[in-house]
Amino acid sequence: MTDAAPERDDNARHAEKAKKRKAAHNKKLEGMSDDKGLLIVHTGTGKGKTSAALGMVFRHIGHDMPVAVVQFTKSEKWNTGEAKLLAKFPELVTLHIMGEGFTWETQDRERDIAAARAGWERAKELIRDDRHRMVLLDELNIVLRYDYLPMPEVIAFLLDEKPADKHVVITGRNANPALIEIADLVTEMTLVKHPFRSGVKAQKGVEF
Amino acid sequence: MTDAAPERDDNARHAEKAKKRKAAHNKKLEGMSDDKGLLIVHTGTGKGKTSAALGMVFRHIGHDMPVAVVQFTKSEKWNTGEAKLLAKFPELVTLHIMGEGFTWETQDRERDIAAARAGWERAKELIRDDRHRMVLLDELNIVLRYDYLPMPEVIAFLLDEKPADKHVVITGRNANPALIEIADLVTEMTLVKHPFRSGVKAQKGVEF
Repeated sequence: MTDAAPERDDNARHAEKAKKRKAAHNKKLEGMSDDKGLLIVHTGTGKGKTSAALGMVFRHIGHDMPVAVVQFTKSEKWNTGEAKLLAKFPELVTLHIMGEGFTWETQDRERDIAAARAGWERAKELIRDDRHRMVLLDELNIVLRYDYLPMPEVIAFLLDEKPADKHVVITGRNANPALIEIADLVTEMTLVKHPFRSGVKAQKGVEF
Repeated sequence: MTDAAPERDDNARHAEKAKKRKAAHNKKLEGMSDDKGLLIVHTGTGKGKTSAALGMVFRHIGHDMPVAVVQFTKSEKWNTGEAKLLAKFPELVTLHIMGEGFTWETQDRERDIAAARAGWERAKELIRDDRHRMVLLDELNIVLRYDYLPMPEVIAFLLDEKPADKHVVITGRNANPALIEIADLVTEMTLVKHPFRSGVKAQKGVEF
């Protein structure tokens, strides 16, 4: 026996439970206006998951609609073009970066869990806050994949406490089946061809 | 006999020719610096092709790197969040919108071809222009799919005249095999789940 089998069972059970709750949730929303907040997931092993989410964040900024971004992985990623541009709109953008909390390389699991928890608590505040039309939870799938946060808690919050007119965008490969089940819009980015396999370095403006 | 078979033959022939030319092109680039301009294609029937391209455009803007955008479909699409945000950076952004040139609905093929030609001539100028680090050719794949521009001409230009340090991003479903062959980075966006099937309208900030 390996660890993989129980994990698959867990996933199937969570997904089944999530499906039922989503159906009940949809019933509750019937007859509501078209101004519906979507739960959007970008997953898959290809490029463009975060870029496409940022495209939506910047669309909101263009419309003068406030947005919030919680970055669930290392901070270096956000010393970037997107961070610089987001910083030009402090009145529209709320940004929470996991930053120093995360380690990965040092394998300090307790510290990573604490950082993930802090990020998730902030994410909940931002999703509940009426001010923001969209909240991006960048790379949350990675944190869930590593069990740094309990999936059932995340699913329950998104189903029960996400305001009906709020968009929440979740990125990262290996999206959990339960999350896909409750999502409204799911896109898988698939790698067809990648230059870094042939030795080209990540490019400023393209990758970061 | 249908029209489909010769089209497939043409595609296979173009792709084979493009493959050989790309190999020669790569040989020419060997030993060049890592600051390589990429030919990037976002295709597939899923969401996020244009959003992910815009994410990269806005990353460039964040880095104060000039970018150009040529929009190969109708103008209404660009009365949007992204257009409003791009307009805030006139010193960094050059924008060409097909606008009134395109018809689609009226089936005025000659007019559409003229509009596509005008867009492509502008695209060539912008790609040749040293000022821009990245040029986005949004929905060019659609125009090529309808044979509004000759694929061999587009392939030849991208291989022979695209400056080595310039990023060109091409979006749209049904990317031609010859284009995929010469591209450096290709991502396919696949629809896993879509809310508009269940009657939810397109959302401001998400879709436009």
